[in-house]
Amino acid sequence: MIGPATYFTPEHRANLDDRTRTLIDRREAVLSPGYRLFYAHPVEFVRGSGTKLYTRDGEEFLDVYNNVPSVGHAHPRVTAAIAEQSSQLNTHTRYLHEGLVDYAELLLGSFPSALATLTLVCTGSEANDLALRVAKGATGNRGVIVTENAYHGVTTEIAAISPSLGGHDSLADWVRTVRPPVGDGAAMLQDARAAIAELQAAGHGVAALIVDTAFASDGFIAPSPATRAALAAVQQLVHDAGGLVIADEVQPGFGRLGTTASAPGLWGFARHDLDPDLVTIGKPMANGLPVAGLVARRDLMRAFGERVRYFNTFAGTPVSVAAARATWDVLHDERLPEHAAVVGAELRGMLDELATRHDRLRDVRGSGLYLGVDIVDRTAGEPDSPTAVRLVSALRERRILISASGRDNASLKLRPPLPFSSADAERFITELDAALHDLG
Amino acid sequence: MIGPATYFTPEHRANLDDRTRTLIDRREAVLSPGYRLFYAHPVEFVRGSGTKLYTRDGEEFLDVYNNVPSVGHAHPRVTAAIAEQSSQLNTHTRYLHEGLVDYAELLLGSFPSALATLTLVCTGSEANDLALRVAKGATGNRGVIVTENAYHGVTTEIAAISPSLGGHDSLADWVRTVRPPVGDGAAMLQDARAAIAELQAAGHGVAALIVDTAFASDGFIAPSPATRAALAAVQQLVHDAGGLVIADEVQPGFGRLGTTASAPGLWGFARHDLDPDLVTIGKPMANGLPVAGLVARRDLMRAFGERVRYFNTFAGTPVSVAAARATWDVLHDERLPEHAAVVGAELRGMLDELATRHDRLRDVRGSGLYLGVDIVDRTAGEPDSPTAVRLVSALRERRILISASGRDNASLKLRPPLPFSSADAERFITELDAALHDLG
Repeated sequence: MIGPATYFTPEHRANLDDRTRTLIDRREAVLSPGYRLFYAHPVEFVRGSGTKLYTRDGEEFLDVYNNVPSVGHAHPRVTAAIAEQSSQLNTHTRYLHEGLVDYAELLLGSFPSALATLTLVCTGSEANDLALRVAKGATGNRGVIVTENAYHGVTTEIAAISPSLGGHDSLADWVRTVRPPVGDGAAMLQDARAAIAELQAAGHGVAALIVDTAFASDGFIAPSPATRAALAAVQQLVHDAGGLVIADEVQPGFGRLGTTASAPGLWGFARHDLDPDLVTIGKPMANGLPVAGLVARRDLMRAFGERVRYFNTFAGTPVSVAAARATWDVLHDERLPEHAAVVGAELRGMLDELATRHDRLRDVRGSGLYLGVDIVDRTAGEPDSPTAVRLVSALRERRILISASGRDNASLKLRPPLPFSSADAERFITELDAALHDLG
Repeated sequence: MIGPATYFTPEHRANLDDRTRTLIDRREAVLSPGYRLFYAHPVEFVRGSGTKLYTRDGEEFLDVYNNVPSVGHAHPRVTAAIAEQSSQLNTHTRYLHEGLVDYAELLLGSFPSALATLTLVCTGSEANDLALRVAKGATGNRGVIVTENAYHGVTTEIAAISPSLGGHDSLADWVRTVRPPVGDGAAMLQDARAAIAELQAAGHGVAALIVDTAFASDGFIAPSPATRAALAAVQQLVHDAGGLVIADEVQPGFGRLGTTASAPGLWGFARHDLDPDLVTIGKPMANGLPVAGLVARRDLMRAFGERVRYFNTFAGTPVSVAAARATWDVLHDERLPEHAAVVGAELRGMLDELATRHDRLRDVRGSGLYLGVDIVDRTAGEPDSPTAVRLVSALRERRILISASGRDNASLKLRPPLPFSSADAERFITELDAALHDLG
């Protein structure tokens, strides 16, 4: 949950320059009041390149926040592919187009062979919504198990399984939550047993367990022998109850967690030894165009296709696929998953070192270029959301983009574009160090 | 409902050339079995321009089917806008970007002043899903009224209000259907009274009536004094029951119905004198990029924003907005809504004339470049789906793209890109005439 103070609110209006104030006034006159702007002092960007964003006045910001433009802002190869395909053709998947087939073959090659089919959609929300439709249809059950601070998207169905959006009161009555696999994982296993029993007793049965494989909104849980054992046991319980396992790779996927010899591949589920029946992917997939997907067992999708007519107008179009393909090619040609592992480890080391000098920093964790660090108060060592929010604002003034998140809104979340360099990491650490000093 | 015979099925595999067969085999090996290909003899396009699509071999097809590339395939101004913006920046709506504000101002200028706010999403399904979330939240009710063959999209929530997808058995228990406003509209009014009473008796109450303002899947119902009176009365009943009215403009909107002095503007709801609380828009909005939206009363969206955290990662990005803005500019600079009215009337006249010579054609209807015509058998005059399907296939061999649809799958649906010319209309009529002759 991102706290209100990292957003613009009207009391900050008087402090703005004329242009920003006018643009915000115009914006507020036409956009839904639900729209939020980052920062008390909002930023207007006009250009991006790699890990940098530039304002109208040419100020350069280092981007430690944006995970969507994963191969770098305005990457020239992705841009060229979009421009070229747009100038030729953009139809839909009911005509043949070789680009779609080429891409699906490449993508599926990175998954276990049982996950043999791709369905393209436009957003992570659509992917998770479809995954649940498939799971509910296949199992004949409706119960869904999520982790206790999960976020999976914004459709009606998916908001109803996302406690991080509106708390437990906002969940559908067929949803149960489990603690994430922290520590020895016993809590998750215990909760899963209870959740399954409750869903069965209520007549819902178990359709699916869905987990973000980085457990990001639940605090970034790294794989360990204990988490693997816990997740394997939970997976078995879900399967035994007739349910399916959905890995939500919308945020962790496509190499953000870093690829190494001991943790190969692009997907978080493999690190946890999960063996999902369905996998959802999205955000970084086309470096910013709306492209997402569902990778699933063929038998599940065959049964779904026989039962349900599903066509997604804007999904899998030649332009969407060209963008996804170029993003895929850059990711591999520039070895960004491997780079994410190396620079992510450097960055983590720098944060660990910084934490030895600032007792407000604690518990650096995560993998690759998807890291979290808690901000705590110096006396009690408790999560300190106001200070986290102040740091985010202070870093914005230092031209660093980052966010506060986590259940207590007291963690800094780091998820920069993957070309993030050692120099970028040093710049970030220098500014964070200074911002921490300024707190006094 | 599009009948199976307009899709490729395995028994047609032997008739294909090697390249097509190989590409289909590869495609079927990786895509979900739910994917469908048009035609027993599928088409592979590699280029498009205006109202034409071109195969790898350079065969030119006339497009009478595709409503998404509304200002013409690969329109150079839209292409250039996408290329330019992609090369600069593509972030999200939590930073300021003037393009979003400019576009929202332009777009809202085409709506009644009460519909004062825009929320951008990525697909028509997301737009309708969000509209229902807003309506359910605002009213505290969950009952939804739709027309009896309605189609509104594919999320879990929206599939459950779309009888055209899976029939009445597929609808949620809080959905009731009404007949569309045909004839004197009495049937719709009667059904609406019953639906409201039932929803209230069941404890659901009335959250919303949602209608496609072209009533396309219900057979294209043109506005008339009787339909206006019926819709006004139904709207009043819904409002009296505490419900809201949602106009689904995803297909009819942005000028497809043709703009004239007596039917000005871009939206279908105005023709029916509907006064919706929420309007959803999509398909042609960005000529093929995934852009859709919800235009709504400010009070509704303020209440929603206070209650619900809603952020759509890929919606309203600089590239999406640049594509939508260029599409908007072309639509107006090329006067395509006015053109659609003129050429649509010509095309309708030609179809009427053709119907005097072919007794299989009946009941030409619709508006602008969104027309339907029934295919009936010559003896009983009953809807004849097999013949409609044969015509679609015959026209494909004559390099004309069109579909069969309607509840009986016995209507030809015409919805070409809006630059469709008089010459295009003549070419279509010539080929349809010949195909009808060939039927014997």
